[in-house]
Amino acid sequence: MARGAASPEDLLARVIDGDRASLARVLSLVERGGDPARAVARALDGRGEKAYTVGITGSPGAGKSTLTSALIEVVRAADQRVAVLAVDPSSPFTGGAILGDRVRMGDHALDDAVFIRSMATRGHLGGLAVAAPEAVRVLGSAGFDWVLVETVGVGQVEVEVAGQTDTTVVVVNPGWGDAVQAAKAGLMEIADVFVVNKADRPGAAEAEADLRRVLDLSGGAGEDWRVPIVRTTATSAEGVADVWAAVGRHRDHQTASGDLQERRRRRAADEITRLVGIRLLEQARAVTSGDRAAELADAVARGATDPWTAADELLA
Amino acid sequence: MARGAASPEDLLARVIDGDRASLARVLSLVERGGDPARAVARALDGRGEKAYTVGITGSPGAGKSTLTSALIEVVRAADQRVAVLAVDPSSPFTGGAILGDRVRMGDHALDDAVFIRSMATRGHLGGLAVAAPEAVRVLGSAGFDWVLVETVGVGQVEVEVAGQTDTTVVVVNPGWGDAVQAAKAGLMEIADVFVVNKADRPGAAEAEADLRRVLDLSGGAGEDWRVPIVRTTATSAEGVADVWAAVGRHRDHQTASGDLQERRRRRAADEITRLVGIRLLEQARAVTSGDRAAELADAVARGATDPWTAADELLA
Repeated sequence: MARGAASPEDLLARVIDGDRASLARVLSLVERGGDPARAVARALDGRGEKAYTVGITGSPGAGKSTLTSALIEVVRAADQRVAVLAVDPSSPFTGGAILGDRVRMGDHALDDAVFIRSMATRGHLGGLAVAAPEAVRVLGSAGFDWVLVETVGVGQVEVEVAGQTDTTVVVVNPGWGDAVQAAKAGLMEIADVFVVNKADRPGAAEAEADLRRVLDLSGGAGEDWRVPIVRTTATSAEGVADVWAAVGRHRDHQTASGDLQERRRRRAADEITRLVGIRLLEQARAVTSGDRAAELADAVARGATDPWTAADELLA
Repeated sequence: MARGAASPEDLLARVIDGDRASLARVLSLVERGGDPARAVARALDGRGEKAYTVGITGSPGAGKSTLTSALIEVVRAADQRVAVLAVDPSSPFTGGAILGDRVRMGDHALDDAVFIRSMATRGHLGGLAVAAPEAVRVLGSAGFDWVLVETVGVGQVEVEVAGQTDTTVVVVNPGWGDAVQAAKAGLMEIADVFVVNKADRPGAAEAEADLRRVLDLSGGAGEDWRVPIVRTTATSAEGVADVWAAVGRHRDHQTASGDLQERRRRRAADEITRLVGIRLLEQARAVTSGDRAAELADAVARGATDPWTAADELLA
């Protein structure tokens, strides 16, 4: 098993040379976390920052996969390379293997300039919040011009991951209910571009007006960027080119104003803080796995002490 | 403003004496986090462990609120006191104030033995994963026999929170799609009781059979507990008493086997570990807010170094 023995560094070198099989293997390493994932991150050494990243999020059933698939066509028509990272909640039971709606993306399976990957990770320290940006960087190192990060749900972590991109697209459907849901899930703050998908259904104009009102109330994503709202019918690709044009305008706007570098700096600072936390948590695990830790857990469960006091005692 | 000046400890003493206004204020403190929340946790000093906690989760629209409302009736018919904590993703923009489906629970507004509270928290260190168990403990200290923890979504954190209870109920609807969704969201592992709600719709028997198959494959929640599947039509309360009976059987089973104490000990250990991590992260924030941290964030954003190397340098 010579291939099986390849180091993370060797695999990454092959990824940079354009080997897709190695790309899939490196992403699996990143997904599983731990030392091999960190070796990949170190070996990247900044090479992953070239791609422009676009987050695509919104409530389940809003048509994110269909939109993503249609966006791939637009990007390909402009002869650019695009990777998709579909961030999925997962289960140790399924091993993240239920791909479901990914199947639709099979159209692009033979196109070498398109790479699609579902990512499902739980149980390793940091989870998706750590693994997703690392995976995005690996995809950047493989020479893709664009990396689309699509989330399946709108849970706390999914929204966070979708927001950790250069431009964030939020997809909703006609109907005021969805605008309320979007506000509840914290999507108003992260949207750089809003898409009202399934706009052939009744209520699209009202949904747009509702969103506009809520956006104007909340101030929107940036100081001087007025979040555009684009209507689409992704199943027939209608309006999808307009979404891509809006993403391009947001990119140009951010690049000209210097906001893009500032956004990336902020994101990097957040990521470093998260990794510092993980390092410390690893150190803390040693502290919290001893006999005294077990006694304290027992005391908390019995109601003999409180968890903050227990935490402080272990750290003292 | 004599009331406004009350300390967290004073407020908690009033909660234990049965003052509902103080209960609402203490829960707001817990929601906001920081020192006042920790003062509450310390002052509780184990008094919150008396209530039996039941998690209620499942995909949006499955009918969790309706089921919860119907369960309240059942608990009240048995003359016991019940509190509901509805865990909601939130937004700094809305301040978590969109209650929507909570309105239905208005029936119980005049019943002193019922307390319902939506909880929405983001942005403070630890978020819902830390605040929810603390809120549950406050409710326990207020003398409720049962605390139901209902989640709105099935994101990573929501599933985690729903699993941090004594008995976890997972609600799905007829249709195989939902069983697949449940597996994707990691709900199979945390379910102690499954509910097929809207069982008056076609496909309920098939959904039950599908779930049974998936559960048998995955091994279910416990070693010797066969996860029951209960069909309900929560809108007409049909089957709801059976859900409650299944919860009771699970409680009896766990109590007899000693699994309940073991489960609570494990939960306490996880919580202590999480709090240790937060303490360390707070210490790390000092480290990551200096000039060198800003330089390193800039270097990562430019691709001049990687975040793990940056994190390690700051910790050195």
